[in-house]
Amino acid sequence: MARVHNFNAGPAALPLAALERAQRELLDFEGTGMSIIEHSHRGKAFEGVHDEALSLFRELLSIPDDYHVLFLQGGASHQFAMVPLNLLPPEKSADYVLTGGWSEKAYEEAGRIGTVRVAATTAEGKRFARIPRQSELSLDPNAAYVHITTNNTLFGTQWHDVPDTGDVPLVADMSSDFLWRPIDVRRYALIYAGAQKNIGPSGVTVVVARKDLVERSRKDIPKIFQYRTHAENNSLYNTPPTFAIYLVRNVLAIAKEQGGLPEIERKNRAKAALLYGTLDELSGFYKAPVERESRSVMNVVFRLPTEDLEKRFVAEAAKQGMVGLAGHRVTGGIRVSLYNAVELASVEVLVRFMKDFAKQSG
Amino acid sequence: MARVHNFNAGPAALPLAALERAQRELLDFEGTGMSIIEHSHRGKAFEGVHDEALSLFRELLSIPDDYHVLFLQGGASHQFAMVPLNLLPPEKSADYVLTGGWSEKAYEEAGRIGTVRVAATTAEGKRFARIPRQSELSLDPNAAYVHITTNNTLFGTQWHDVPDTGDVPLVADMSSDFLWRPIDVRRYALIYAGAQKNIGPSGVTVVVARKDLVERSRKDIPKIFQYRTHAENNSLYNTPPTFAIYLVRNVLAIAKEQGGLPEIERKNRAKAALLYGTLDELSGFYKAPVERESRSVMNVVFRLPTEDLEKRFVAEAAKQGMVGLAGHRVTGGIRVSLYNAVELASVEVLVRFMKDFAKQSG
Repeated sequence: MARVHNFNAGPAALPLAALERAQRELLDFEGTGMSIIEHSHRGKAFEGVHDEALSLFRELLSIPDDYHVLFLQGGASHQFAMVPLNLLPPEKSADYVLTGGWSEKAYEEAGRIGTVRVAATTAEGKRFARIPRQSELSLDPNAAYVHITTNNTLFGTQWHDVPDTGDVPLVADMSSDFLWRPIDVRRYALIYAGAQKNIGPSGVTVVVARKDLVERSRKDIPKIFQYRTHAENNSLYNTPPTFAIYLVRNVLAIAKEQGGLPEIERKNRAKAALLYGTLDELSGFYKAPVERESRSVMNVVFRLPTEDLEKRFVAEAAKQGMVGLAGHRVTGGIRVSLYNAVELASVEVLVRFMKDFAKQSG
Repeated sequence: MARVHNFNAGPAALPLAALERAQRELLDFEGTGMSIIEHSHRGKAFEGVHDEALSLFRELLSIPDDYHVLFLQGGASHQFAMVPLNLLPPEKSADYVLTGGWSEKAYEEAGRIGTVRVAATTAEGKRFARIPRQSELSLDPNAAYVHITTNNTLFGTQWHDVPDTGDVPLVADMSSDFLWRPIDVRRYALIYAGAQKNIGPSGVTVVVARKDLVERSRKDIPKIFQYRTHAENNSLYNTPPTFAIYLVRNVLAIAKEQGGLPEIERKNRAKAALLYGTLDELSGFYKAPVERESRSVMNVVFRLPTEDLEKRFVAEAAKQGMVGLAGHRVTGGIRVSLYNAVELASVEVLVRFMKDFAKQSG
């Protein structure tokens, strides 16, 4: 079968060339007579892959030398615990900005570990249709850190400006919009991201963390949960998910070849503009609930007049080779994920379908 | 290049057919037009793979219904913390049997979380050349659990009998010998194993745990670290390492096709018998330090007369297509890992080389 148009919310589409490269060398990595999966994590073959992945991250995101780049396991949900375990001492509290289901989960997990505060929420009846303004943030100047979720896959919102948290370290869950455009890493003290949206398969989590913060982090927690442990061992304290890191390397190498993050941003903005433009044009049929300034470039959510029409929309789109369009089970509706590997051509196919569907059903 | 003879200690050789199947369908999983890596973990395609992996585990190991089978992340090192977090309440202590570097690490991590006791150790000058006898175990009848490491990759020892711990739950790290032969799961309360030896790639950890133990485990710890969380959500609380689980499924399907664990045990014993037989035959040149009754069927360690000869041994073997023979950096010497995917033919090549090498150098 030809490749489908994959709008999955994650695990999500990967660049075809990254998969093709993996397929070509799956049985024999660079003439070594074995798969990269079968190589020791302490051998030269994997070391080369690992080092290349790290240096591609540093290059693509211009990560300063005083930040660690770590490959961990367990996904963002694991970081929901690791962040407060490492960074929240008993005498302090941490500020959480609630903008959707994932930030709520991060907040709840942190609350099992230490003292947490809500610095802002846009729940407003669980709708989470916008990102709070700077003026709405009630920040504690003595907080251990401020936590935000930069993009909200369920509700289709995204932070387009980095909030000003003064001297308080900003921690960001970027799982669903990591590497979609250039960022100023210095605005953040710690960034974490599960790979399975923009950068690779599920099973590996990237952490970018200021070295002094890691240095000062708590030592009275299990060793495996300390950022320090992984930083001191170049992410090789225990066996890393070698194949997942290898695939991330493949994805990053292609990102660089294709012009790096400025070019990726340009493509992502073109895809989002086309889709949001269509929604606005057909606003009599499709309802996009998110406030305009908070619209996510990664996950576009909308509703149809009835749930029945939404089901038909998903089913008919699937017949035409478009998959992953059903909204999250919590929110319902339609969700179109436009991660880096989704091509503009796929969005063009989708908007043609949306126009036809609206005409037939409207 | 032809496939090499891969004696890596882990990540290790995988069955060629499991990798070939992955290669064939890497771009198009079962006619869905996308890679299994790109499928949602909540979609039908992955669900089928996940369910098949679970039922193959249950079938191959005869896992009773009152045990959970979970797929987690973080490797055995993560379990070193999860086991005491879940199973060690403040008012109790846990017994650890120390038989090598990994059991020491498990013991140290547990000591950061609760009260631990050494029930036995065979360190004897850090040599760990044997498994303790039942009579040597000083067990606390009130312990929360007893922890053992069933196979010791560094020192080449293996428990061949399950210790009797009375009413105290037995917890076993089986990372390096899981699925090498049939076991009586009922003798264990909890088994954990990183996949990267006998059952798949690094990045996924299998936990087999008695349901009542999980039910009674601690609730005052972060949610992501609770076995309960993963059990209640069929290992889908957060995004699992989908491709790693898919590869495990491929490996298990082949294990079943090839006759299941009785046949795998027969092959493993034949490989080990050939290699240990050669060591005994050439005991004037090769020194096998492990007590005979404690010899591991998975990792065979031995020394040559000098370190210089050991280096030459590894280098000349590599020229003849045999890799992964250098001992662990802690122990030195030679280590031959004979995990399930290593073929008897590879061991035959190795012992011919060993005989020639001894003749030339002895």
